[in-house]
Amino acid sequence: MSLTNASPLEVARAASVSGLALARLDTSARNAALTTVHAALAGAKGVILEANKKDLAAANTAAENGQLSHSLVKRLDLGKPGKFDDMLQGILDVRDLPDPIGRVTLRTELDDGLILERVSCPIGVLLIIFEARPEVIANIASLAIKSGNAAILKGGKESTESFKAISTVISEALKSTKVPNDAVQLVTTRDAIDPLLEQDRYINLVIPRGSNSLVRYIKDKTRIPVMGHADGLCLTYLCSDADASSAAKVIVDAKTTYPAACNSVETLLVDQDALSTILPTVASALQKSGVSLRCDPESKAALAGALEKHHAALLQDASDEDFDTEFLDLILAIKTIPKGAGPEDALEQAVSHINTHGSHHTDAIITSSAARAEKFMDAVDSAGVFWNTSTRLADGMRYGFGTEVGVSTNKIHARGPVGLEGLTVYKYKARGSMQATADYGSAGKAWKHKRLALD
Amino acid sequence: MSLTNASPLEVARAASVSGLALARLDTSARNAALTTVHAALAGAKGVILEANKKDLAAANTAAENGQLSHSLVKRLDLGKPGKFDDMLQGILDVRDLPDPIGRVTLRTELDDGLILERVSCPIGVLLIIFEARPEVIANIASLAIKSGNAAILKGGKESTESFKAISTVISEALKSTKVPNDAVQLVTTRDAIDPLLEQDRYINLVIPRGSNSLVRYIKDKTRIPVMGHADGLCLTYLCSDADASSAAKVIVDAKTTYPAACNSVETLLVDQDALSTILPTVASALQKSGVSLRCDPESKAALAGALEKHHAALLQDASDEDFDTEFLDLILAIKTIPKGAGPEDALEQAVSHINTHGSHHTDAIITSSAARAEKFMDAVDSAGVFWNTSTRLADGMRYGFGTEVGVSTNKIHARGPVGLEGLTVYKYKARGSMQATADYGSAGKAWKHKRLALD
Repeated sequence: MSLTNASPLEVARAASVSGLALARLDTSARNAALTTVHAALAGAKGVILEANKKDLAAANTAAENGQLSHSLVKRLDLGKPGKFDDMLQGILDVRDLPDPIGRVTLRTELDDGLILERVSCPIGVLLIIFEARPEVIANIASLAIKSGNAAILKGGKESTESFKAISTVISEALKSTKVPNDAVQLVTTRDAIDPLLEQDRYINLVIPRGSNSLVRYIKDKTRIPVMGHADGLCLTYLCSDADASSAAKVIVDAKTTYPAACNSVETLLVDQDALSTILPTVASALQKSGVSLRCDPESKAALAGALEKHHAALLQDASDEDFDTEFLDLILAIKTIPKGAGPEDALEQAVSHINTHGSHHTDAIITSSAARAEKFMDAVDSAGVFWNTSTRLADGMRYGFGTEVGVSTNKIHARGPVGLEGLTVYKYKARGSMQATADYGSAGKAWKHKRLALD
Repeated sequence: MSLTNASPLEVARAASVSGLALARLDTSARNAALTTVHAALAGAKGVILEANKKDLAAANTAAENGQLSHSLVKRLDLGKPGKFDDMLQGILDVRDLPDPIGRVTLRTELDDGLILERVSCPIGVLLIIFEARPEVIANIASLAIKSGNAAILKGGKESTESFKAISTVISEALKSTKVPNDAVQLVTTRDAIDPLLEQDRYINLVIPRGSNSLVRYIKDKTRIPVMGHADGLCLTYLCSDADASSAAKVIVDAKTTYPAACNSVETLLVDQDALSTILPTVASALQKSGVSLRCDPESKAALAGALEKHHAALLQDASDEDFDTEFLDLILAIKTIPKGAGPEDALEQAVSHINTHGSHHTDAIITSSAARAEKFMDAVDSAGVFWNTSTRLADGMRYGFGTEVGVSTNKIHARGPVGLEGLTVYKYKARGSMQATADYGSAGKAWKHKRLALD
């Protein structure tokens, strides 16, 4: 890794060259580099925490002046118990994942002595733009090395000193490995972003980890494909055949375990028939966790009598806008799904609301009917469609991907939590014995197109 | 299919709604629609050829005035023997391909009673911008219906009458099927492109089938992901251990069978030691097929004495620019790869030239050494890397994909010839039994992450 002051063109070109070399390293060489990086960071903990303290001091001053939120300052702190060790463990976790490169995913005998294979390979050069949390740099550098991709990293300015310290340590460590130093480069100036976004000849994918406005800004500025999540407006549809207490458990989990996460539930759709039977149990559990309920008139009327008096302030009227809002807070919008012509009709209304107002991230149905759940999962156009579990399940670690680069709400390439596999593409290898295409078709020879077994 | 005069916003929104309905149709309903479309087009051959004659007449006038090339006029003609029948057969071929939708590609037991599946699904709405050949509209409509995607089609203006006739027939036919009419819409005005490119809320992928400048124009104008091929500057590396006559056969095939195709070879790299042993046989075969050879000084010197006198005009000096040119014609640039420190070193030089000057489309090596070929295929960063066969093999039909939407030189999503699979993405389905995420990790429960068998 190098901390670079080179021009954006030079940075991108160096990444491209180093990426090609990195892509040719075998599994053991890439894994060995991660072992080395892990040891180096472990040995440099003191130096890195010193640098982190400078960032923290500057951030605290900014927070006192109201220029920075206190929650952001908290996220900067690498000295919090367990945080540094988690960062170190993350490097080993990535190292120990199966190699995503070199997997054969298709093998076809085109003709005698002519075999086509589709083989996974790195994408090339990634430009990753991310926010404050300083430990992310070690995480992303590990993912890049493991997946054979060169990476250009641009972190939030609040963590500059921490980033510089970590990057210097990684850079020194890589010198004793086979990974080219320029395969991971850190860019520290904000001005570098726009010119980097113009390097579509050398950079193959931009991954913004940040706000919607950052993602949108980047898409406006570049021809390079962008893999970013837009909003996380997740919904849960509570059906009248659900069990009240377990529904309450799942919905409280989806709303309260990390309200600022993109996979938290923001709107609850409720079957009309569930308003007086199941919703009060759910609402009561939510209110005990301090959740404000923004209700449409029907659900509010149903809850008005059913809830304990001292929670009255948490029962509010929903505006139309609330059903298009990602609160990222202890607030939940509640909307009634009218019975209509029956359960089928109600399901269609819920699906239609979700496909129109949701962000296609993750949506869940709580029902005891498997048929209803399957219909819901087929019809909802989201990266995650869940039956009887919490939307908070949508996460790379929980899915078993080891770690995630981010959550994609794109409709191509990778969707949902993106692990190492999302950092790969493939090439077609054909091994022939001097076949000419002109001999096939009307010239007489026929293609065999026989599927062969994979490994 | 509808021929639309609606506003671009209305077109995109209607496509989005219809796409969701189309995505829910089962295999048999989508296949039945293709059977119906096929029959309707077969019955309307006379009407369609009448319309095509109007396009041809206008094109011929334009060609006489020098506003249109004669080769383009040729491509417009649907009345050429076999062409209409090929178009019809293509619809049945697509119908009979395996369903790309609903395939489970990952199944993991996250915990008891909590199963995660990754299931292939349509992308959503495709905007396909293509050039003159009128039969492409039937091909693309079939691919869209088969893959469950809504499509907005914008064809070249030279085929407008043919497109309108075909689109009217398809539209009428679809009325008796379950495919919503707005799932395939034809847009005929050039002005519609820019406003359509702004509909990133409803359109999920743009597929331009046309010139590099069209692809670049589109990438500059939109936030929607673009899947287009850039140049097709393919190379072949001829090693000194190759058999001369079979090398000649493969290279003549790669250059002459369709010089205007993106998978034709444009530059031949030749080992220094092959200049006097193998190259003369190859060059002589190329010249007999009328190929002009643009040679670097060493290869020209080697060929000057070896070739027949009457072909002398086809032996030319290469400029630097020739090695960055997609000729799309019977012209081949020839470059010598110096021996350097030995075969390893020569291979690295060839790879470096290809990765720098090629377009990452398809590149081949001709050698009798398997080890050399494997190294080449690992190191060359192209969608297709071939050993001992013609670059012209890079084609969806030849790969066994049935038909292709295009050839992608993107580094994400789909790379190389793109068939139905490239028109799909996936969603994650989780079927649970009221698990809450808060119960896992430090709270005590552990994820099982057990891979389950696929079907």
